Amino acid sequence: MKKNTRIKTLVTVGAGNVAWHLTRALYGTGIKVLQVCAPRLDQAAELARKVEAVFVDRCDKINPSADLYLLAVPDGKIREVAGSLPDVKGMVCHTSGITPLDVLHRFEKRGVFYPLQTFSKNRRVDLLPVPFCLEGDPAVVLPALREIAERLSGHVYEISSEKRAQLHLAAVLVNNFSNHLFDEAENYLTQNGMNRSMLFPLMHETVNKLQDLPAREAQTGPARRGDYATIAKHLEMLTDKPHLKEIYQFFSQQILKKYHE
Amino acid sequence: MKKNTRIKTLVTVGAGNVAWHLTRALYGTGIKVLQVCAPRLDQAAELARKVEAVFVDRCDKINPSADLYLLAVPDGKIREVAGSLPDVKGMVCHTSGITPLDVLHRFEKRGVFYPLQTFSKNRRVDLLPVPFCLEGDPAVVLPALREIAERLSGHVYEISSEKRAQLHLAAVLVNNFSNHLFDEAENYLTQNGMNRSMLFPLMHETVNKLQDLPAREAQTGPARRGDYATIAKHLEMLTDKPHLKEIYQFFSQQILKKYHE
Repeated sequence: MKKNTRIKTLVTVGAGNVAWHLTRALYGTGIKVLQVCAPRLDQAAELARKVEAVFVDRCDKINPSADLYLLAVPDGKIREVAGSLPDVKGMVCHTSGITPLDVLHRFEKRGVFYPLQTFSKNRRVDLLPVPFCLEGDPAVVLPALREIAERLSGHVYEISSEKRAQLHLAAVLVNNFSNHLFDEAENYLTQNGMNRSMLFPLMHETVNKLQDLPAREAQTGPARRGDYATIAKHLEMLTDKPHLKEIYQFFSQQILKKYHE
Repeated sequence: MKKNTRIKTLVTVGAGNVAWHLTRALYGTGIKVLQVCAPRLDQAAELARKVEAVFVDRCDKINPSADLYLLAVPDGKIREVAGSLPDVKGMVCHTSGITPLDVLHRFEKRGVFYPLQTFSKNRRVDLLPVPFCLEGDPAVVLPALREIAERLSGHVYEISSEKRAQLHLAAVLVNNFSNHLFDEAENYLTQNGMNRSMLFPLMHETVNKLQDLPAREAQTGPARRGDYATIAKHLEMLTDKPHLKEIYQFFSQQILKKYHE
């Protein structure tokens, strides 16, 4: 890696969960954060304070001399933010799974810095096992991004926009959709006077098991066994919960089809 | 607890995953396992050997003098097995979530010993955090079961047949259905040349997060945000995967409905 591509200074645009975690982590590795730019004060000013940066509320106030501009804004805002950034010489990267690199085509050096993880502001996440998916154009961008990603994670990959979108889709299944199931299960338990925490050991084991077994082999339960009697009892228990019954039927049909057709 | 209700000897009927884990765990706490009874040799003989018990292949060979008979057989077999057991004075318990206690009505002392967990033969599971759901009739059964359950777990509950069935249903959502999602996500990634292990940190964090946040607050993703553009892109990516597309549409509609109606 040429010395002149080394990233020493950062401007973060956005102050949501991804901005919050990545900016603080990069600051923690010794990168100087010049500014945090976000339209509304609240979380952005707090983030700026934590990383000794200046808070600015508009893109035209952005310092044009940073080595890296991290656009950690909602997917739907990337194009707009990219359009309103000043002409900068530094690398401009977004952090989105679904957005192609070429949305940043107006910048000389552009890249993607996508951590495959779910972030909430008030939850510390260990970044070390998190896959960081990088893309860069021209070629000089990639080693510079790799160098900073490797300060955070042991799992840094160069991934095309197409593969990254596929990873993002898989992440939606694994995180968003299973979380919806967990929510439904928690509601059902609490509606019946039991505590949601009773499910935690099972949730943990559901995931831990997959380190040893592919999910296909880890599959258990009434639909997996073709145990129609239990499925019928469960559906009867859900007579007055049409929404949950719909979920139960949907999954049972899918699993029965997968293992018994 | 009266001294004469203390469980010192056990006969296990069944040799599947639940029988395997519970029998070995109870043996580990000092309970003498007299017999393991199962129709086919393979796993039953191995289990019997591990717990210094005698393997028998038919219910009429069962030793009638044990303190506890654990019927760890598939839900659909409990009635049949209960019918073919000799008349015993000891407690007869099943380990099923969905099966009512009264399926064991012919026995003088009957109970349920239900661990809310998923078991695979070759995976060690830490039982200490696992909820053990007990039921017993007459009243003398319960303290005896509680005493042995508390040797295994720090979370022992007395739960009615009705509540236990509800817990079992919630467990199906949390484990079986989310595992099906994980399987679909793994397949999608590997079909696209990526490694399933890239999803592990996200799976873990999805579950770990719920210790801090109820699932409703932990929900993120395109459908949660009402980000129709990303949903449309994902659906387009799934054009040639109708099965996965169906899952994606089902969940996105449910989540959109929950947060945006």
